[in-house]
Amino acid sequence: MFLAPQDVTKVTSIGGGPIGGGWAAHFLARGYDVTLYLHDPKELPAFQAILDTAWVSLTNLGLAPGASRDRLRIVHDLEEAVRDAQFIQESAPENLGMKQALYKKLGEIVPEGVVIGSSTSGLMMTEIQANCATPGRCVIGHPFNPPYLLPLVEIVGGEQTDPEAVEWAGEFYKLAGKAPLLLKKEIPGFVATRLQEALWREALHMVANGEATPADIDIALINGPAPRMAVQGQCMAFHVACGAGGMATNLDQFGPALKLPWTRLEAPELTQALRDRMVDGCNAIAGGRGFEAMAEQRDRQIVAILNALRDSA
Amino acid sequence: MFLAPQDVTKVTSIGGGPIGGGWAAHFLARGYDVTLYLHDPKELPAFQAILDTAWVSLTNLGLAPGASRDRLRIVHDLEEAVRDAQFIQESAPENLGMKQALYKKLGEIVPEGVVIGSSTSGLMMTEIQANCATPGRCVIGHPFNPPYLLPLVEIVGGEQTDPEAVEWAGEFYKLAGKAPLLLKKEIPGFVATRLQEALWREALHMVANGEATPADIDIALINGPAPRMAVQGQCMAFHVACGAGGMATNLDQFGPALKLPWTRLEAPELTQALRDRMVDGCNAIAGGRGFEAMAEQRDRQIVAILNALRDSA
Repeated sequence: MFLAPQDVTKVTSIGGGPIGGGWAAHFLARGYDVTLYLHDPKELPAFQAILDTAWVSLTNLGLAPGASRDRLRIVHDLEEAVRDAQFIQESAPENLGMKQALYKKLGEIVPEGVVIGSSTSGLMMTEIQANCATPGRCVIGHPFNPPYLLPLVEIVGGEQTDPEAVEWAGEFYKLAGKAPLLLKKEIPGFVATRLQEALWREALHMVANGEATPADIDIALINGPAPRMAVQGQCMAFHVACGAGGMATNLDQFGPALKLPWTRLEAPELTQALRDRMVDGCNAIAGGRGFEAMAEQRDRQIVAILNALRDSA
Repeated sequence: MFLAPQDVTKVTSIGGGPIGGGWAAHFLARGYDVTLYLHDPKELPAFQAILDTAWVSLTNLGLAPGASRDRLRIVHDLEEAVRDAQFIQESAPENLGMKQALYKKLGEIVPEGVVIGSSTSGLMMTEIQANCATPGRCVIGHPFNPPYLLPLVEIVGGEQTDPEAVEWAGEFYKLAGKAPLLLKKEIPGFVATRLQEALWREALHMVANGEATPADIDIALINGPAPRMAVQGQCMAFHVACGAGGMATNLDQFGPALKLPWTRLEAPELTQALRDRMVDGCNAIAGGRGFEAMAEQRDRQIVAILNALRDSA
């Protein structure tokens, strides 16, 4: 039904703002032919600035063989923009009515069997695809800003999405140099934004209560959890910090602290089922590596980050 | 009253676990004479392993002139350990009764005018210093694990702490190569742990509800918010992402989203006062730099991190 992901050579990005423009830059750097749909020709200078900026970073990260800015085509007619596309990345404004109307149209004009990924960060695919005649190939493909740098793409379908389209998107984004995360459920904020949003709201509470300034928040993050979190997510950070006992020791030792007012967010009950999922999940990530090896890697990579930050300052 | 921070050459670290041992390694690498108090000689092999591990990273980060592992003295007698100290870093177990008894003792035997910094992550200095005869020089000096790598030290006094001791600790830790953060209030979890704990509890909720696995959580963080957060904290990340409008645009555009169920943590009311604090705070961090310059720095440093992570993998 779908073209094999490795056979995709032509991608269309709908939208030329920071997200759509960033996507176009990313796909160009990975060696695709890119068609950019700009609704309004007036958006062109802003997009060119985004591409100029992004290309510096993409070049420093390393371009794919054959990658070229010359492989970009900019069009202002939607039908023309999608006609030859083998994948569509949609980054239209975050307005449900506008997205529903767009997907009604895309459902009619995008060639059969071509997957459409939406960059939306706040809308659900079940709602976006409501008026689309071919909803099976519509998925969320949510990047993190800036999309030409951060690898994450969160992927999930709506109620009418064909599970094959979700799988396809996961394979395609991986081939396109991204770190795809296929979500278990269609939830508001997906996974990464939920984690970030919890942190953000706690930060706002602290500022509101005079406990911290924005500068305090950022100093704390930059010099504390963030460099480690870029190497190990929070689960493995706690797993490895507890030595051979791992996450089990963490939950047994700090489980009671989940009741303490260390944040305004109440923790879930630490049931045996949750404990098992956390412990089994961390052991699965570790994949048999001992904590010494993982701590050694953590330290080596944190040092690499700290030195890189110092040298690039 | 206190020795000038730049005149400190002798530091005592109480405790040889991952925190106390990590502190000893850090101070050695910064060129101090370090006395390590080990309660039990049996802790020695574990501490040696910590020091061996830490020294690899500290060497790769760059040792201070004169720094040497030979400048370490290990003692098992507390009075001897603190006798010549010019600063004490206390990293005893997280048990309030034990800490109170320890500070009662330290209050008597630590030379007058010597500041004592506690590594506690969960206890309040007001409680720790309750039975100490010289509580004025007792402060929190909370590191982030591993303390020999992550720069953050959160500093706050208890009700009986002399504000001069807090200021002194801020200056001393900075001279000792750390990134000190002087807290506005004595709050549970301080600032960095509160931010991390909000994120962590949201993660536990997602795992409990089958919305994500530990692997999903970590993939999302590592490939999404974390590399950016290591360059810009969350406040500046949002400020810069909104272009010339900065945090004001962010709050006007995403303010309504604070009511959305993007996390289980309810946001504070976005009052005019909170909005002003956020906007003024971000403008203060920016210090007159335009968003293009900050976006350029963000991109350059994210590229540096991604390349460093790839090359050190």
